[in-house]
Amino acid sequence: MSSRITILGPGLLGGSLALALRARTGARVTLWARREEAVREVIESGCADAATSDLAEAVKDADAVVFATPVGVMRTIAEKIAPHLQPHCLVMDVGSVKRSVVEELGPVFAARARFVGCHPMAGSEQTGLAAARVNLFESAVCIVTPMADTPDEDTEAASDFWQGVGCHLLRLSPEQHDLHVGFVSHLPHLLAAVLVNTVASHEPEAFRICGPGFRDTTRVASGPPGMWTEIIGQNREAIRQALDGLIEKLRGVSTLLSGAPSPDTDSLMNQLLTQAKAQRDTLRLPRNSSDA
Amino acid sequence: MSSRITILGPGLLGGSLALALRARTGARVTLWARREEAVREVIESGCADAATSDLAEAVKDADAVVFATPVGVMRTIAEKIAPHLQPHCLVMDVGSVKRSVVEELGPVFAARARFVGCHPMAGSEQTGLAAARVNLFESAVCIVTPMADTPDEDTEAASDFWQGVGCHLLRLSPEQHDLHVGFVSHLPHLLAAVLVNTVASHEPEAFRICGPGFRDTTRVASGPPGMWTEIIGQNREAIRQALDGLIEKLRGVSTLLSGAPSPDTDSLMNQLLTQAKAQRDTLRLPRNSSDA
Repeated sequence: MSSRITILGPGLLGGSLALALRARTGARVTLWARREEAVREVIESGCADAATSDLAEAVKDADAVVFATPVGVMRTIAEKIAPHLQPHCLVMDVGSVKRSVVEELGPVFAARARFVGCHPMAGSEQTGLAAARVNLFESAVCIVTPMADTPDEDTEAASDFWQGVGCHLLRLSPEQHDLHVGFVSHLPHLLAAVLVNTVASHEPEAFRICGPGFRDTTRVASGPPGMWTEIIGQNREAIRQALDGLIEKLRGVSTLLSGAPSPDTDSLMNQLLTQAKAQRDTLRLPRNSSDA
Repeated sequence: MSSRITILGPGLLGGSLALALRARTGARVTLWARREEAVREVIESGCADAATSDLAEAVKDADAVVFATPVGVMRTIAEKIAPHLQPHCLVMDVGSVKRSVVEELGPVFAARARFVGCHPMAGSEQTGLAAARVNLFESAVCIVTPMADTPDEDTEAASDFWQGVGCHLLRLSPEQHDLHVGFVSHLPHLLAAVLVNTVASHEPEAFRICGPGFRDTTRVASGPPGMWTEIIGQNREAIRQALDGLIEKLRGVSTLLSGAPSPDTDSLMNQLLTQAKAQRDTLRLPRNSSDA
């Protein structure tokens, strides 16, 4: 585990990572924030050992740097910090897309530091430092996505880093990662939003009777739209593929509901629901603590 | 509040109702279960004052009877208990569909007792007495669905009953109820199941990286398939209408993802997500306790 760690971005993920590193390791944690007001919030929260809005100052002594900013600003920040890094510095990110991130950041850090793309599958619809919590990464899956020329020891160092805050590790290519998250993260996010919008446009009075099922199936739709627009924009093809697969199945269900009621249609519906339950009940899902 | 209450069915809802009634009111609670083994479980759990598998015995002294069985067996049970009820007995149910239930049960209880269809929007993907909890109904919306000829005082008595266990009340016609739940309960249930099945058939390896978003958007898919097949089968038209509205919007999203990336498509995506977040953030949703 590196001893001086700098986190870029004092949001839910950056703040939670700072808390976890300080609670579970002996690391000295510096948080960089763009706005002075955010720097003050970090200092007041006490989640990091130091906070600054000066990028060069934030990274110059770091053994590891973690991007916890929106993916859209990573490249600009990368170009600013690259000249100030120590060559042994391990640079990682927490972005929800990986192909575009490693293609953009990899060349910037080549011969300047050691870069490994990472994606801890942790988060919440809540945002900001106030939502940060020390156990956000506990039992989460973290995917590391080395490029073809990433030295194994760098990938292993990144894996050790995330294991140190409680993650289970998985190694995937950036392309595999993006296809996987298209199906189990980006598609569900879009679905949740479209479900809310469907009720709003077709039967808004139904919102009066929302129960726990609606609350949970739509929870992620309360996430930050700007951040998700960026993520979706950088994984369009995988998401469209997942979405088209889903639409095809939904059309089958609509057909099932259109025909005359019969034991056959009930049997097909039961089969659909039984398959889904059987599959979901075998999954290793993250524990539900306060993030739902 | 009635003083002798009989609950038919010792599952999650029946057991939780028994716990809530005993904790919050002075009612004497009898639980009826079909199987002797379930009767013994009720007695061992201590959630009710009495338990029996004898229907006539269970209801003969009751001031109120609540059906907490699957909707598919309600009519048969209703015909068995009707001759044994006191005329002042208030009969209610907790079924997730209302038009078919009130059409089936209303005539059975006419001139025999006072029947009011009810639907507390509470539950979980878990089932059975072991999952019952005293606060399941706290802050849940309960919909009462009187028929045209239901006396106001009966509807009010049913409302008082559910308020007594912590529910917020809403009065709807059975048809309005079924349309509403088609959109905010039955459609989300189908979506969750179809989402799981889409990943299973198109990208099963993605299950390895499920995070809290996937856990929550699919939670209800772990509910009991048989019960949900019945519910969906009795609300086909409303669900199909909701589903077709959703499919149309999803096709729009697919088109948005198919075109060339541009600031315009990003702007439309951002608008979609912003609308959904704004709408969801204004909803009164049930608190998340241990049911998620």
